Amino acid sequence: MSVVLGIDPGLASTGFGVLETNGNRVRRITDGVIRTPAGTDYGERLVMLYDGLREIVERHRPGEGAIEELYFSKNVRTAFPVAQARGVIILLLAQCKVPFEEYSPGAVKQAVAGHSRAQKEQVIRSVTMVLGLYDEPVNDHSADALAVALCHVQHAPVRAALARAAATR
Amino acid sequence: MSVVLGIDPGLASTGFGVLETNGNRVRRITDGVIRTPAGTDYGERLVMLYDGLREIVERHRPGEGAIEELYFSKNVRTAFPVAQARGVIILLLAQCKVPFEEYSPGAVKQAVAGHSRAQKEQVIRSVTMVLGLYDEPVNDHSADALAVALCHVQHAPVRAALARAAATR
Repeated sequence: MSVVLGIDPGLASTGFGVLETNGNRVRRITDGVIRTPAGTDYGERLVMLYDGLREIVERHRPGEGAIEELYFSKNVRTAFPVAQARGVIILLLAQCKVPFEEYSPGAVKQAVAGHSRAQKEQVIRSVTMVLGLYDEPVNDHSADALAVALCHVQHAPVRAALARAAATR
Repeated sequence: MSVVLGIDPGLASTGFGVLETNGNRVRRITDGVIRTPAGTDYGERLVMLYDGLREIVERHRPGEGAIEELYFSKNVRTAFPVAQARGVIILLLAQCKVPFEEYSPGAVKQAVAGHSRAQKEQVIRSVTMVLGLYDEPVNDHSADALAVALCHVQHAPVRAALARAAATR
């Protein structure tokens, strides 16, 4: 049994999703969004993100983490504040000894919706179906975070095989 | 009297420089470089940077911080790991309640060497002269960090005037 924390990093809204896997079974434990108000001092927003995520990690003690990579927009200036927030997330996982993998948005969409250019709605629908969340609609950021965690779970057999191959070489 | 911490952010090497200002006088308290080995796990490198800088902040208790902005290279991919490291630095300053300003590389060069496209050697020479460090050559990253701190000190009168103007409006 393993607890996986998926993260969709952002400055204003960081989605998180916690899954429990047991063999071929996957169950959602929780999901949500850490929000930092736009008018707030930038450093203070990073502290809010750090503290919010720390609480999630301490409560659920994930054994593995999965973070979505940054989408490269043409406007680098707007990407930097998010990259900086992402640094805070990675710091926290490392401080809490949670090993993590990073996945591109395309890989995440491929994993949950079957192709790398799936629309947001398709991702939400797939996540809802796979995790059986029909009664509790998940929002965008939550769905993305759960999708990253699902992507990580899906890659587990290949990761394990690679680890075995590396160990026996 | 005020203690200013200047930071030249990087992943492999983050320069820091601590100055003490007293009216028109500026004195170097210390400077140095926090290094994180290239082969190390990325998250672990962020932890090393965080812990190293935390030690400096706790030892010298700066009242103000100054961080150099990222230089925009054409290759965004290489800029992201540094932006993430920068996020860790900003987090730490905010957690330690050190208010900070950010300065572009051009503004820093302008402040210490007189023009915004000054060469690295000119920056080092200026910092050496202004702080009277003839006997102790400073390295690149240290010099950059001291230059950012000097830039901040130089902007102090304008900042103070703006604050007064805002308060009386």
